[in-house]
Amino acid sequence: MSARLYEAVFAPESVALVGASDVPGKATARPLEYLRRHGWAGTVYPVNPARETVLGERAWASVKDLPSVPEHALILTPADAAVEAVRECAEVGVAVATVVADGFIAGSPAGEERRRALLEIVGDTSLRLLGPSSLGVANVRQHMALTGNAAFAEDRLPAGDIFVASQSGSALGALLSRGAEMGLGFAGMVSTGNELDITLGEICLAAVDDPAVASFALFLENLAGADDLAAFARAAAERGKPIVAYKLGRSDDGARLSVSHTGALAGDDAVAEAFLRAHGIARVTTFDALLEAQLLARRVPIRSAGPAPRVAVVSTTGGGGAMAVDCLAAAGVRVGAPDGPTIERLAAIGVAAGHGALIDLTLAGTKYETIKAALDIVLAAPEFDAVVAVPGSSARFTPEVSVAPIVECAGSSTPLAVFVVPSAPEALRLLRHNAVPAFRTPEACADTLAAVFARGLVRPAVPLPAVPLGETTTLDEDASYDVLDRVGLAGAARAVVEVDRLPDELPVPGPAVVKVLSAALPHKSDAGGVVLGVADGEQLQAAAKQVRAGVAAARPDVEVDRLLVQRMVRGVAEVLIGFRRDPDVGPVVVLAAGGVLAEIYRDRSVRLAPVTRAEAAEMIGEVRGLAVAAGFRGRPLGDLDALADAVVNMSMLALAQDPVVVEAEANPVLVLADGEGVVAVDAVVTVGGLV
Amino acid sequence: MSARLYEAVFAPESVALVGASDVPGKATARPLEYLRRHGWAGTVYPVNPARETVLGERAWASVKDLPSVPEHALILTPADAAVEAVRECAEVGVAVATVVADGFIAGSPAGEERRRALLEIVGDTSLRLLGPSSLGVANVRQHMALTGNAAFAEDRLPAGDIFVASQSGSALGALLSRGAEMGLGFAGMVSTGNELDITLGEICLAAVDDPAVASFALFLENLAGADDLAAFARAAAERGKPIVAYKLGRSDDGARLSVSHTGALAGDDAVAEAFLRAHGIARVTTFDALLEAQLLARRVPIRSAGPAPRVAVVSTTGGGGAMAVDCLAAAGVRVGAPDGPTIERLAAIGVAAGHGALIDLTLAGTKYETIKAALDIVLAAPEFDAVVAVPGSSARFTPEVSVAPIVECAGSSTPLAVFVVPSAPEALRLLRHNAVPAFRTPEACADTLAAVFARGLVRPAVPLPAVPLGETTTLDEDASYDVLDRVGLAGAARAVVEVDRLPDELPVPGPAVVKVLSAALPHKSDAGGVVLGVADGEQLQAAAKQVRAGVAAARPDVEVDRLLVQRMVRGVAEVLIGFRRDPDVGPVVVLAAGGVLAEIYRDRSVRLAPVTRAEAAEMIGEVRGLAVAAGFRGRPLGDLDALADAVVNMSMLALAQDPVVVEAEANPVLVLADGEGVVAVDAVVTVGGLV
Repeated sequence: MSARLYEAVFAPESVALVGASDVPGKATARPLEYLRRHGWAGTVYPVNPARETVLGERAWASVKDLPSVPEHALILTPADAAVEAVRECAEVGVAVATVVADGFIAGSPAGEERRRALLEIVGDTSLRLLGPSSLGVANVRQHMALTGNAAFAEDRLPAGDIFVASQSGSALGALLSRGAEMGLGFAGMVSTGNELDITLGEICLAAVDDPAVASFALFLENLAGADDLAAFARAAAERGKPIVAYKLGRSDDGARLSVSHTGALAGDDAVAEAFLRAHGIARVTTFDALLEAQLLARRVPIRSAGPAPRVAVVSTTGGGGAMAVDCLAAAGVRVGAPDGPTIERLAAIGVAAGHGALIDLTLAGTKYETIKAALDIVLAAPEFDAVVAVPGSSARFTPEVSVAPIVECAGSSTPLAVFVVPSAPEALRLLRHNAVPAFRTPEACADTLAAVFARGLVRPAVPLPAVPLGETTTLDEDASYDVLDRVGLAGAARAVVEVDRLPDELPVPGPAVVKVLSAALPHKSDAGGVVLGVADGEQLQAAAKQVRAGVAAARPDVEVDRLLVQRMVRGVAEVLIGFRRDPDVGPVVVLAAGGVLAEIYRDRSVRLAPVTRAEAAEMIGEVRGLAVAAGFRGRPLGDLDALADAVVNMSMLALAQDPVVVEAEANPVLVLADGEGVVAVDAVVTVGGLV
Repeated sequence: MSARLYEAVFAPESVALVGASDVPGKATARPLEYLRRHGWAGTVYPVNPARETVLGERAWASVKDLPSVPEHALILTPADAAVEAVRECAEVGVAVATVVADGFIAGSPAGEERRRALLEIVGDTSLRLLGPSSLGVANVRQHMALTGNAAFAEDRLPAGDIFVASQSGSALGALLSRGAEMGLGFAGMVSTGNELDITLGEICLAAVDDPAVASFALFLENLAGADDLAAFARAAAERGKPIVAYKLGRSDDGARLSVSHTGALAGDDAVAEAFLRAHGIARVTTFDALLEAQLLARRVPIRSAGPAPRVAVVSTTGGGGAMAVDCLAAAGVRVGAPDGPTIERLAAIGVAAGHGALIDLTLAGTKYETIKAALDIVLAAPEFDAVVAVPGSSARFTPEVSVAPIVECAGSSTPLAVFVVPSAPEALRLLRHNAVPAFRTPEACADTLAAVFARGLVRPAVPLPAVPLGETTTLDEDASYDVLDRVGLAGAARAVVEVDRLPDELPVPGPAVVKVLSAALPHKSDAGGVVLGVADGEQLQAAAKQVRAGVAAARPDVEVDRLLVQRMVRGVAEVLIGFRRDPDVGPVVVLAAGGVLAEIYRDRSVRLAPVTRAEAAEMIGEVRGLAVAAGFRGRPLGDLDALADAVVNMSMLALAQDPVVVEAEANPVLVLADGEGVVAVDAVVTVGGLV
């Protein structure tokens, strides 16, 4: 999106309101009311073929009749009329049209027809389209609310430096009023709706260079525009403007809803999580945190992998401090007691610390001097990556005692956040006014810290091979190993034999497993196609017979002509390593604990592919079941270094050209004893195009 | 606690303020200030030996000098003086003394000494003690704030029908201000501190008959007074007064903090959860919900086990409704689409429902009539156990459109809750004023619904055998099976043989496992004391030799004279069934998935023992790994009926008299194929007293 187009969207000199109503209070009358009430300085053209005037202002019959071409047209008419209005806008050269109407969802014939019509106009002309099903845009600093959303009926729109982009319209209104209540304000707001043309990522990318914008709050329903979002995230990271996102679809029910809303398919939540984390986006799960996290996200640098960050909690209220520690720890944040030198410095000001995670100032007394001195000591302590201050009732009645010292620490190099235990809206606003991240609930505080620490360094764009169109081909097990071999992921020693010409000796060191070899039978065991513990040539004969009989019974359609004979191996742990291309976010790699229990517990780690070795090591740390290969209860160590290599190698399939791999799964992969590597003992690879 | 004592605590006619300060604003001056400011009508005696007057009122030198005996004395002095003050109160016949000072923690010698002194006074006299480390009490309806907590400096204390009891003092203040902001009010508030004498449960039990109290909010740090809490819960359930609790200790860090705070050992959080659920107490995990859940807890009846309750979400804002659905589902609440007849009735008023979990009124328009009609239909639908209404920005600007119809449904027989998407404090207060449960965040809304649905019917008091004092004895495996046999939990067929007189034949059907039999060796395998797959008498000889050699090497101190020979059995799943007596809540039974992975995933279910068969079935449903025995991916069914019996039987150890079992673990217990039962194949039982 060019700077000129961004101006047309957020800072036009003139706008048309197509379908503006003359009935005060109607949703279609509100945009004109809002533009006037909030004092926007630009030119407004109400368009309404049925009226000479609208709310006392001159109205035009059509966009074609306007005295000048508006840069931005807000189309308020129902769906059918909206298509016509967009066409007229394109004809006269309007830069951007925002369509409010619903009714363009793929699925319904009429919706499909309208959708195609809009796409045609956008394809054939220079007009860009926001929506449909967009609630509009707002440039809060310029007093422009180009929307009919009831939420903008505020007396005064809260101006500030946060840019909000939402696929949902109604979330926009909720964030507006909640931000105002919090004492946080907005530079711009946009609802992108169905994203037929302009995506959320594209518009945010254009906003990155807006000097009025310091950080971003995204309300996401799906990741259909993941490429644009990634480009935006890279640009935002370069300019040091953090992004916080709330994304629907944590539950399966929520995911299904996102579908019905936008027509886009909501994907696996773990994939979404991997995408956001890999792009330095802090994903929060409490709604308050979407705004409350903004200030902290600006203070905490995105970190590369390393030891878990350590947080200090400093409290003047025992119970409140304990609540903060409990919530932080439950959210996976490491709350740590101070180290020796810090304990000594605290002792010198009368604060006894080090008995537990909480630095409790209660006994030393809620005095300005104590709080300030304790915060100075803890903020200077090298062992902490962030400090959470927890004032009690004094924050409500005597902020000069417990809030003032926190405000004075606002410029500390270690990030400082505050959970205010009582209801103290003034204290919260005072803190935020001074750029101190402040939280109304311990849950949003913990959620935010966990989310900003979980952000990964933003990945660079990776050139991916084009996936051939049309059919895909699933390879047999032997050919699948070949593909994996080429990226360095080894299978156990194997040989292919023909059933009619079996060798006299086992072709691999025994004992071996004998499996039917056929791309048509990925679930070999279920079809009687596997025999274990084959020790020699004689047993191989018997095994071949058994496989033939078993498959003939279970799957008479499958010809058994070749067998895979593979050395049986014992590992200290089993894992699954998978690769696939997500339709939204592209290639991903999955590491999961092996076995049926791990499947039940959904114990796995997902990352965008390819991954670095450090990322692979992080993934291993996230799969809880892999504790069995890390010395849990005195068990033998597994070769986790080799496992990390295997994960990296599998992820490299993202880049492989010949063939282009669409999907791959090595399951199980056996993790052998430390130093002995890992081997795949089953594999299925699907490649693009026919082979 | 007698009614008279409850009156002395919450509705005394006269109080003494021992250690009342003459310096305005000091914590020790505040109680007198508060009693005057809020207009309490009773008699106040400031006690201060150093002054003739305190804040302009006459002061007395000692409790002994007062013109009449006060019913309640608030002791504001430091710890040492507090002991003396309590002694004087006891001497003159004060009914209850509340000690504010810290410094009575077991562990420090001085603290221990003071603690003992207080316990002696309480033991020797009729005086009852609140605290120490109590922040005091408040009778909000009578304008009595008998506390020095800064939070009570409000202009007006919010009177209402909620009773708050907190082990933490500071939580009291936070709840006071947050309640006021929410439009919720309080009948009474009490901080119980270290609970040296009066426990939280005892004081709440006394409050149950207070007609001013409709429900309870508890802030818990530990369950040291579990028996009192249980008695209170039973009484509250009888009178239909619900209890909501926020308990610290969800994380290990939080649990450790509770220790340092009160000196009481905080236990396993799963045990606490089991205790609360078994006593009909809704445990919330978001702080807002402790108060926000009060109204809903009054509307939703405590249910016996049965199908998961089904919740409808009705929204006038797509994004907000989707957020509610997502949060509810993520909290484990079943959000359901309407059934056919309801879909038809909704269609008749222009609402298209049934495509997903959300009943979205957006397209039908945010009109009073539509909202009212839709709510009437959904509230009358038999398929729903509760309905969540989700109004959007209209709740802020036009509550007569979207909030009024909800208020009109306040009396519906199906419980109705509201998540208000924008910032709309007036709408929230209006709803709550009309007894409609209203929530400021989707997370607190979901947390509350999950918590009130999770409540179990309150268990009756169960008479338990006295555990013999002194030593406990761990039984060997054979004797352990004997104990389990007596409650009907069977082990696999077994025989004990002497190493020096081995039988010629296997004494049980083979193949068998041979294990060293010694109470000194609970971890037999680690000590080389187990041989598997023993098929006949000859192999038994070899196995005996092997066990003898193995144990001699690993544990030369253990004499190997007896072996347990046990039939080897194959099950479709492995579980652990455990029993122990928790020092706070008493006997509990644990069902966990077997194997190392289940241990890593902490996949288990805990209940107070004994359990009913219905509870045992619920436990089986909660252990996710047991899906492998319930037909997961076409696996054979396990005998889950027999497993439920086994869990019930193990839990019956709670009542067994001879011997009294302190702890028992059968691990693994094999779940055999459906219809074939379950058998324990290892067991350790510890009994009270020497055997």
